[in-house]
Amino acid sequence: MSDGARLLRKAQAKLSDPAAAAALRVRPDPADPRLTRQVEGVDETGQPILTSVVTERPLTLYLNSQEIVTMMTIGDHPDYLAVGYLLNQNMLLPDDRVTAIDVDEELGVVVVRTKRATNYETKLKKKTRTSGCAQGTAFGDLMEKFETVRLDSAAVLKTSWIYALSRRINAIPSLYLEAGAIHGCVLCEEDRPLLYMEDVGRHNAVDKIAGYMFLEGIPSQGKSFYTTGRLTSEMVIKTVQMGIPILISRSGFTAWGVELARQANLTLIGRAKGRRFVALAGVERLIYDADPRGVEDEDRRHGRKGEEG
Amino acid sequence: MSDGARLLRKAQAKLSDPAAAAALRVRPDPADPRLTRQVEGVDETGQPILTSVVTERPLTLYLNSQEIVTMMTIGDHPDYLAVGYLLNQNMLLPDDRVTAIDVDEELGVVVVRTKRATNYETKLKKKTRTSGCAQGTAFGDLMEKFETVRLDSAAVLKTSWIYALSRRINAIPSLYLEAGAIHGCVLCEEDRPLLYMEDVGRHNAVDKIAGYMFLEGIPSQGKSFYTTGRLTSEMVIKTVQMGIPILISRSGFTAWGVELARQANLTLIGRAKGRRFVALAGVERLIYDADPRGVEDEDRRHGRKGEEG
Repeated sequence: MSDGARLLRKAQAKLSDPAAAAALRVRPDPADPRLTRQVEGVDETGQPILTSVVTERPLTLYLNSQEIVTMMTIGDHPDYLAVGYLLNQNMLLPDDRVTAIDVDEELGVVVVRTKRATNYETKLKKKTRTSGCAQGTAFGDLMEKFETVRLDSAAVLKTSWIYALSRRINAIPSLYLEAGAIHGCVLCEEDRPLLYMEDVGRHNAVDKIAGYMFLEGIPSQGKSFYTTGRLTSEMVIKTVQMGIPILISRSGFTAWGVELARQANLTLIGRAKGRRFVALAGVERLIYDADPRGVEDEDRRHGRKGEEG
Repeated sequence: MSDGARLLRKAQAKLSDPAAAAALRVRPDPADPRLTRQVEGVDETGQPILTSVVTERPLTLYLNSQEIVTMMTIGDHPDYLAVGYLLNQNMLLPDDRVTAIDVDEELGVVVVRTKRATNYETKLKKKTRTSGCAQGTAFGDLMEKFETVRLDSAAVLKTSWIYALSRRINAIPSLYLEAGAIHGCVLCEEDRPLLYMEDVGRHNAVDKIAGYMFLEGIPSQGKSFYTTGRLTSEMVIKTVQMGIPILISRSGFTAWGVELARQANLTLIGRAKGRRFVALAGVERLIYDADPRGVEDEDRRHGRKGEEG
């Protein structure tokens, strides 16, 4: 994007919906110099250019004395990311007390300390030995909890909210608009975005929201979840584990994501762009209060760029 | 996408470039019934619809007697995926001989057998014990090889090839056009796509190409790599390890991806859509033989949909 186009877009964003933007408790901070870097290159005509690219740095997570994982992240909220990751992996339980979170930015290390001497450490060791890979074990753990969650069956989703959320989220200044190559996840309430997190990995953006909700005491009651990314099994599992009954995306579905959403009675909305969307699970929560013909189709200039993850 | 629009798009694709399509040794097979599923849902007006979604299934990989990892994949080329994964993780070396690959589709298991009794098994055990997570260890292993690779400094990239590749790849029938929510990677030679693999995870699509090249004896000499996904550190590392000196993407960059590309002298082209692109590393391989003003900008109807991974 040229500087002129970017400034114009930012100005539009600021004017478009000040009330909605003000209600945001957490929003992307595209002006934070740690999150993007100016890089020299050339364009299609061979002219030198300067462009913004998103940073991506390793962060190694410890739970008490146990090294858990090294994540690649933009690095804006290592505390929320660490706690959210542990929660979503069921290594931290909802009644655990976090006594300290120590972040060393230079070393790229975050240590989460809990009151209860975690037996997750032993659990992790045992599982690692049997499967040889954290990806496999994480998956086993995730499913254990997934099957016990009961989502709020009284929750509703008005179609006017879907349109309002898409419009508002598209208008919030973000790293996406600044530099692209990033995913956004937004915790919402009715037609209002509340928490907007971005990261190079979609899973990190979700985990940061989970960590924020846990540490700041935000209940999942009455919330919905919006993501720029695809509705894969992983996204569905995390949303269900967080107790959120509604998941909305601009992008498409995978078959297993749909299957799991149906199992858990999660309302799953995909391909939500302009007036269009498709619901493939939990459709009974939908209330059709908006006339799609009154909704503008997304224009290339004002919509988010197609940015393939 | 409506059935009408899809058929029209397929017809256009077939007509548009038969020679280029014929040169493809491997292409997506959107007609394979195992790869997509028809799912019922509702659209924005509450009307019932039937839509295609991509399948996603677990595949557990064994190297000889050692369980290595469980991957989520569309499942079209478990043999290439398995071998490519092992190569890209440096668990299989270029001079290793694969004696058998056994696939059990029902169990979701693939076993790669090698002639040399692999000491990678011991290596894996040791590494897993020290770090507690395969993500961390994989990363350590990847970097070891990365630093020893010398990419062909005589390779060139004509800008006319970038435009021709984008146009041709956009016109090839694919799961992406059929169902969305998938990533594509394409091995290319000058202006011709050779191998086109898709998968739910970008890393799987790359690994399938690496496995095919190894098993079918395709050298990396004179090749370039095209991806629909972002130019992250992971993509750069894998491309460099495969010995391919040029990486092109429709999507954006991360700062660490750019840094690694510069270290390895990889030509890195991003945001390649219509007439536009940006080169942020290895720009000396570029030859400006096309006039960008003569290239049509991507139209919404004929370009690939913005599908955010």
